[in-house]
Parts: sequence; structure tokens; C-alpha cells
Amino acid sequence: MPFRTASTAAPKLAVGIDMGGTTVKYGIVRGHEIIEELEPLPTPAFKGPNPLLKELTVRINALKAKHKGIAAIGMGVPGFADVTRGYVHELSNVKGWNRVEVSKILSGGTGLPSFVENDANAMCYAEFLHGAGKGAVNMIAVTLGTGVGGGLVLNGQLYRGSTFGAGEIGQMGIDYQGVLGEHGNIGALEKYVGNREVAALARELYAKARCRVAPEDCEPRALSAAARRGDPIAKQVWDTYTTHLAAGLCACVWLLNPDRIVIGGGVAKAGPIVFGPLKAKMSAQLAKSFRSSLKIVAAKFGNDAGIIGSAAVALDLAAKRK
Amino acid sequence: MPFRTASTAAPKLAVGIDMGGTTVKYGIVRGHEIIEELEPLPTPAFKGPNPLLKELTVRINALKAKHKGIAAIGMGVPGFADVTRGYVHELSNVKGWNRVEVSKILSGGTGLPSFVENDANAMCYAEFLHGAGKGAVNMIAVTLGTGVGGGLVLNGQLYRGSTFGAGEIGQMGIDYQGVLGEHGNIGALEKYVGNREVAALARELYAKARCRVAPEDCEPRALSAAARRGDPIAKQVWDTYTTHLAAGLCACVWLLNPDRIVIGGGVAKAGPIVFGPLKAKMSAQLAKSFRSSLKIVAAKFGNDAGIIGSAAVALDLAAKRK
Repeated sequence: MPFRTASTAAPKLAVGIDMGGTTVKYGIVRGHEIIEELEPLPTPAFKGPNPLLKELTVRINALKAKHKGIAAIGMGVPGFADVTRGYVHELSNVKGWNRVEVSKILSGGTGLPSFVENDANAMCYAEFLHGAGKGAVNMIAVTLGTGVGGGLVLNGQLYRGSTFGAGEIGQMGIDYQGVLGEHGNIGALEKYVGNREVAALARELYAKARCRVAPEDCEPRALSAAARRGDPIAKQVWDTYTTHLAAGLCACVWLLNPDRIVIGGGVAKAGPIVFGPLKAKMSAQLAKSFRSSLKIVAAKFGNDAGIIGSAAVALDLAAKRK
Repeated sequence: MPFRTASTAAPKLAVGIDMGGTTVKYGIVRGHEIIEELEPLPTPAFKGPNPLLKELTVRINALKAKHKGIAAIGMGVPGFADVTRGYVHELSNVKGWNRVEVSKILSGGTGLPSFVENDANAMCYAEFLHGAGKGAVNMIAVTLGTGVGGGLVLNGQLYRGSTFGAGEIGQMGIDYQGVLGEHGNIGALEKYVGNREVAALARELYAKARCRVAPEDCEPRALSAAARRGDPIAKQVWDTYTTHLAAGLCACVWLLNPDRIVIGGGVAKAGPIVFGPLKAKMSAQLAKSFRSSLKIVAAKFGNDAGIIGSAAVALDLAAKRK
């Protein structure tokens, strides 16, 4: 439970909830700081949305008694949410989360304005307001993990699209004759740079080279370390990886002409092994006016981005509602 | 010189200028109507930007005397323009147009607020305000011709990006191992669906089939007619074409989750031959929430879009400046 120094500006307090398939993390947020983070709840221990939201309600009411002036609740969810209605359509990786009126339940139980947001959008907004996206006007956030997600800030505002689905960078095609994504989408970026695909490529290349490696040696973290040591196969994996990622991100840049790309998720921690070649390959494929204004940076917040961003989105939406 | 009935709402008048490499078309616009269109100026007849802008100034001053209440001048240009400064950086297809202070020259000569805009953005805005994009919230416009251009309206506003370059749909990659675009960009959509590439594919397929055809039979218009007659090779060309175009547009949809795509340019006139398979291929590659809210339609204005859109953008920018 980290406790951090409060800023002097003292922005409003909000509860930020970061719901994943394994745990529900939450805390009290002031600006870029989680001033109190609570013990996470284990998602699968709750039989569906109602018991989980009830438990959150009880805990948030306890927090209300402790922290005066909580202005809003924001909940980031791994899936398809209607931000205007505070409604979760579907979470593909969490059982029973279909058609859930999250805002209504949380507001009803706590008396606080409550909002729901896609988790990649929440992360994006945290980085934009307080992290690696600070000062950007038009920003693309991408999270690289098992899946590839993304969020967009355009003209200083979170851009959600017509049905709250914008920013699905992992579903964009990079090869019109390529492998199929989850939605029949040909050449989906996620199927080239997802953690599983990276591990599969590493296993294949090590096997071809008749190198015996353990499965954990094919995880992104181990491959980064191996590449830094000069392992030619690990280097080849990252070379392929950055070629694929550059293709996807260049398409985003041609369409949106952003000034910032913030890269988060496990792979972003690989550092120069990924960022160096990625930037070089992108620069070689962009017109001057597109590349000269563009900064590509690693995310700042890591695992805290979901809580901070959900709280920030909630404060933003609460202010707009007034 | 078409003269059209004025609308009863009587929006403000503006001069719309649509500059191309061959001609400069211009007219007086009220809302969606060109109430007076003048004889176009031949672009190559003018030695650089100053003589051309001077001639336009003289002609616009004559129009001012005739039409009372002209509120602004908008000029759409085929290239890279700084809308805020009213400055043309570079027009790749028009000699001598580098670093030209268009707004300053036109305002200085006419006393009217003057603005410059990329031509694809102007076309996009015309369709959004008055044409096939009416009622959309988030719209992608794409023009299919020798080159492939595009424009974006997001949350009801023209979105220009950080250096006024947004909407370069033709430069987005659809194959990370594909052919090079103008900027070293691998697999650029334009290199798959540009008119020249379509003609080249048709020539190749007719040659393989030992069919003798004239060069004009490989133009998009003739290929559309041939496909409607059942010509298997023309049908194959359009099948390949829609596969490529679907790949590019699906990537845009995953990123922006728009509710409208407006397709303009010569190929859009091919009608169901293009629109039918294009929609089917896109639907098969999009999640339900992305496809159910999306309409794909042909542009309304054709050649008038540049004049109407430039005028509309100018009125919009003039209002914001106040």
C-alpha cells in the first residue's frame, strides 16, 4: 500500500478501479498520485458482476468516511464499454460480464458520480495527463502484451469513436494476405507482436538453429536480456518484431499525424533493443513533416496507469456532466 | 457557369478556390451551392504563386463588387499547408509553390479573411457539412484516383493532426513486405489501388489471358463497364482492388471507429462493382460494434467538392478567429 506525498495544487480526489481478469485493483487518486491503494480483489472469486460491484461499493463507502471530498469513481474494464451510459457491453475474458449497468450500481451504492471506461483508454489518459504523454496534443498510446491495445488523445481530448471502440491498434492489418485476427481481420498486428507470437517465433528460430532453450527463455523479458548479450537469434526475433510494429504504427501516423506515441506493456521495458530499431524503421517510412514532430516514448506509469487513468477519466466526465 | 437557386436559410457567402496542377477553379459559395462559378484559370500559365495569386485577387475584387457580403476566401491546395498560418509549405505537383504566404497575399489584396487548406480536407468537409457525410459524427473521406487522399472529421470537427498532415490514407501500409510508396513507406495503399496500378494489373491479366485490349480498356471507367458485362478479367481486377481497399479502410475503422466512410474520386463512380464486394470484405473483418454503426457511401459532390469545401472551411475558420 504505497502512500505518496500529496501535490500542493491539491486536485480533486477520485476512486480509480482497474479491473482485470485476475484482480481488481483500486485506490484513491489525487492527480498523478495514488494516495492510498487497497488490497486488490481476486476477480474470479466473485460470481459475476453484482457481488463484485457490491463488494466494491462497501469498500468505497469505507474510503469515503476516511477521505473527505471524493468527487467521482472511475472503473477501467478490459472490454467494450459505453462510456455515456456507464454500461459494460461485454468483457470477453471475464465470465458473466454482459450488459452490466456499472455506473448505476456504483452510483446507487455510494452516492458518487460513477463512470466506466475501456482500460486501454484509461491508461492512455493517465499517460497523457500525468505521464509520458504530458504536453502532447495528439497522442497514440499502445500497450504491448499478450494482446495489443491502444488509446487515442486527439486535440487534447480522449477520442472514443462512434461506439466507444476507437484505438484498436492490435486489430489493424499489416498484411492483407496475412494470418487471421480474432475477428476474421486479415493480418491483425496483434497476431504478429503479441507475447505468444513472439515466443512462438523464438522457439521456432532456436529450434531451426538446433539450440536447446527452456520455454521461459522465449518470453519477452528473457529475449531482451539475450539480445543485449548479443544472442543472434534473440536479436533476429526483435528485428522481426520491430518491423511488424513499425508497420502498424506507421499506418497510425499517416492517418493521425500525432506528435506523441506512448508505448506501454511488458515489451516496452525491453528499452533500446526495441525503441532504437523501431524509431529507425518508422523514420525511414515517414515524410519529414510526419516524423519531425513525432516523439516515441516509453510509458511512465506501468501497472498504476489503470487506476490513475480511470480516476482521471471519471473526474473529467463528472466535470463535463455539470 | 451554373447558377443555382439560393437556399432560404441564406448562410454567409464565401469564395471557394480549388487549385489543381492543371486548373484553378473558383466560385462564390453559399452553403452547399456554388452560386457563381467562374472560368477556371490554367495553373501552368502562371509563373509561380505570385502572378497566380495576383490574378485571383483582381478577380475576387470584381466578385466583391457584384456579390455583397462575401465573408471569407478559402483556397484548397494539392499538398502540404499550414492552416493556422495560411501558409503553403510545398505542392509536389506544382512548380514554384514552396513557402508561400497565401493568406497574407489574398487578404492583403482583397481585405477578406483568407485561408488555405489541403484539398482532400476541403473535399471531406464539403461532404460532411453538405453531402454524403451529413449527419455523421466521425467520418473518413477517401478520394480514389491516380493518388489516394483522405480527410477526417472527428467529433464533428475537421481533424488535421499535429502538422496538418492527417488523413493520408493512401500512404498507410497494407503489406509490411510490399512495394514501396513515395516516402519509402512499405506497402502503401496508393501503390495498390491508384489508377496507374489498376491499369497495370489489368494489362498484365489481359496479356496473360492472351487478350488484346487497347490501353483505354484498362482505365477504371472501361474496367467498370467490362465487369458489368461479365468480363472475367475485369471482374478479377476489381476483386483484387476491393481486397486491397478493404484492408486499408478496415485499418482506419479499427483505429477510429467511425460511423461514415465517404468514397470519392473516379473509381467511386464504378458503383456496385466496387461498393458491394468492398462492404462485404470489410464486414467480414470487423467486430459487430464497428460494422453495425458504419455506413459506407459514395461522395455526393464530385468535382464541386473542392470549391464548396474550401469555402466552408474558410467560413468555419473565420468564425473561430473572432
